[in-house]
Amino acid sequence: MKVNIIEVGPRDGLQNESTPFSIAKRKKLILDLVDAGARHIEPGSFVSPKWVPQMKGSGKLYLKVKENLKEKEVRLTCLVPNLKGFEDAMKYGVEDIAIFASCSEGFSRKNINCSIDESFERFNEVVALAKKNKVKIRGYLSTVFGCPYDGKVKEAQVLKVARKMMELGVYEISFGDTIGIANPKQVKKVCKLLLAEFPKKKLAMHFHDTRGMALANIVTSLDQGIRKFDSSVGGLGGCPYAKGATGNVVTEDVVNMLHEMGCQTGLDLSKLQKITRGLEKTTGRSLPSKLAKIKL
Amino acid sequence: MKVNIIEVGPRDGLQNESTPFSIAKRKKLILDLVDAGARHIEPGSFVSPKWVPQMKGSGKLYLKVKENLKEKEVRLTCLVPNLKGFEDAMKYGVEDIAIFASCSEGFSRKNINCSIDESFERFNEVVALAKKNKVKIRGYLSTVFGCPYDGKVKEAQVLKVARKMMELGVYEISFGDTIGIANPKQVKKVCKLLLAEFPKKKLAMHFHDTRGMALANIVTSLDQGIRKFDSSVGGLGGCPYAKGATGNVVTEDVVNMLHEMGCQTGLDLSKLQKITRGLEKTTGRSLPSKLAKIKL
Repeated sequence: MKVNIIEVGPRDGLQNESTPFSIAKRKKLILDLVDAGARHIEPGSFVSPKWVPQMKGSGKLYLKVKENLKEKEVRLTCLVPNLKGFEDAMKYGVEDIAIFASCSEGFSRKNINCSIDESFERFNEVVALAKKNKVKIRGYLSTVFGCPYDGKVKEAQVLKVARKMMELGVYEISFGDTIGIANPKQVKKVCKLLLAEFPKKKLAMHFHDTRGMALANIVTSLDQGIRKFDSSVGGLGGCPYAKGATGNVVTEDVVNMLHEMGCQTGLDLSKLQKITRGLEKTTGRSLPSKLAKIKL
Repeated sequence: MKVNIIEVGPRDGLQNESTPFSIAKRKKLILDLVDAGARHIEPGSFVSPKWVPQMKGSGKLYLKVKENLKEKEVRLTCLVPNLKGFEDAMKYGVEDIAIFASCSEGFSRKNINCSIDESFERFNEVVALAKKNKVKIRGYLSTVFGCPYDGKVKEAQVLKVARKMMELGVYEISFGDTIGIANPKQVKKVCKLLLAEFPKKKLAMHFHDTRGMALANIVTSLDQGIRKFDSSVGGLGGCPYAKGATGNVVTEDVVNMLHEMGCQTGLDLSKLQKITRGLEKTTGRSLPSKLAKIKL
């Protein structure tokens, strides 16, 4: 069985590092990931460097990465928060963007300072221009399984927001467990509902390992029929606006489990391990990767 | 749904701490666990202090704990490796012992210096005496899902050794993933085979989190019908004889997941969290617990 891994370390991961990586280091990380077999990567985001200095120069980075990819077909999805970001991305020839919305009003207000409906209104212009320019769109939904401000999020609400996002014409939605609170029972229920309504190729799961449940949630999603998962090499990152939201699930730990279960990901475990050990040197701290700590 | 947690931290955990805990500290840990709701605990083992100095004085400890339990019914299972250990345990009035065997010849030879068959021969006298003294027996099987020396372990072999152990009259067997290599697909297969042959109340799973798969394996076992799991508060421990065998699964992380899924364990999460934070101070190192790092 083939499973797609979307590598979010260079964006979702690095944007949470206190010391920004240089563009050269970010480029090396992305090319190392491509060399390890990654074929869908989030290289950066077009947000104001005032808000997220770690993502500064994402356009330049994008060009440098493109230059070095040669023949390899790698999907590079750049996060774009608004029209300004979209216009910036277009200057560099970005072909694949990600837009994001929240499933809970509390998180929407705190994270992007508007209601969920307002956030969708803001998408309209970006989406229209993206379609005109044949730019592909990935959707992110946050707080799918719980919100740091509103608590529980109802499944009906998730479906409602997911429908709105699908209607925009996104090629897939990544469903985020922003605060790492999802449990397998809940994940089973949500996956069943999503798969009953949308084609599986349009569904990706984005789990955080804050409470150690990410791999259990991935296995549960896989059982239900999900075949796409976001993860972050070394477990870099989280969400800077969500209290306690540490721990993107670790790419190499996910990949190891999938391979052990007989799934194919196209990723090379020993190369991923090497990348994480390098990141531990660069960041000067131990990353949450289990696989980086053992002999293969 | 009720799920039983068998707390192995005071034995399987502490025997792997480089600096032995005093008997007073071990007693406090056990009584704190009882206060947090633990009703089945491994307090220590009757092995030679020459081999495992951390478990020295387990008899004395047992008496002190018993004295303090008052009315509470807590099952205290003491590890007994041989006749000498059993005789020691009897001096202190131990009522519940654990014996252990390996599913792989390589691990049996390296760990207890005899073949699997020989290890069962050695049990005969202990088992006969235990029955005579109305002492209850728990069985441990190690390397159920893989061996650091022999590699893969066949399911037929696991069943063969499990049958032999059940025939001794143990009240339950704990199936150990000694090197933390089990994956959910394999766990599903093994659980199915075990449940087809033995009553579920006689089956417990003992996972290590070496590769981060322990919670995923617990959810999978639960799905199949297993209701008993060994775990270690704070994630103390592993196996001193198995290369790379770190990481007993963390009690509070298991309990949190089970509670989130609507299961009852009888354990108090905030009290477990407090115990682990205390252990981090005592050991002077960060333990692998996820729940100890967040606000409840």
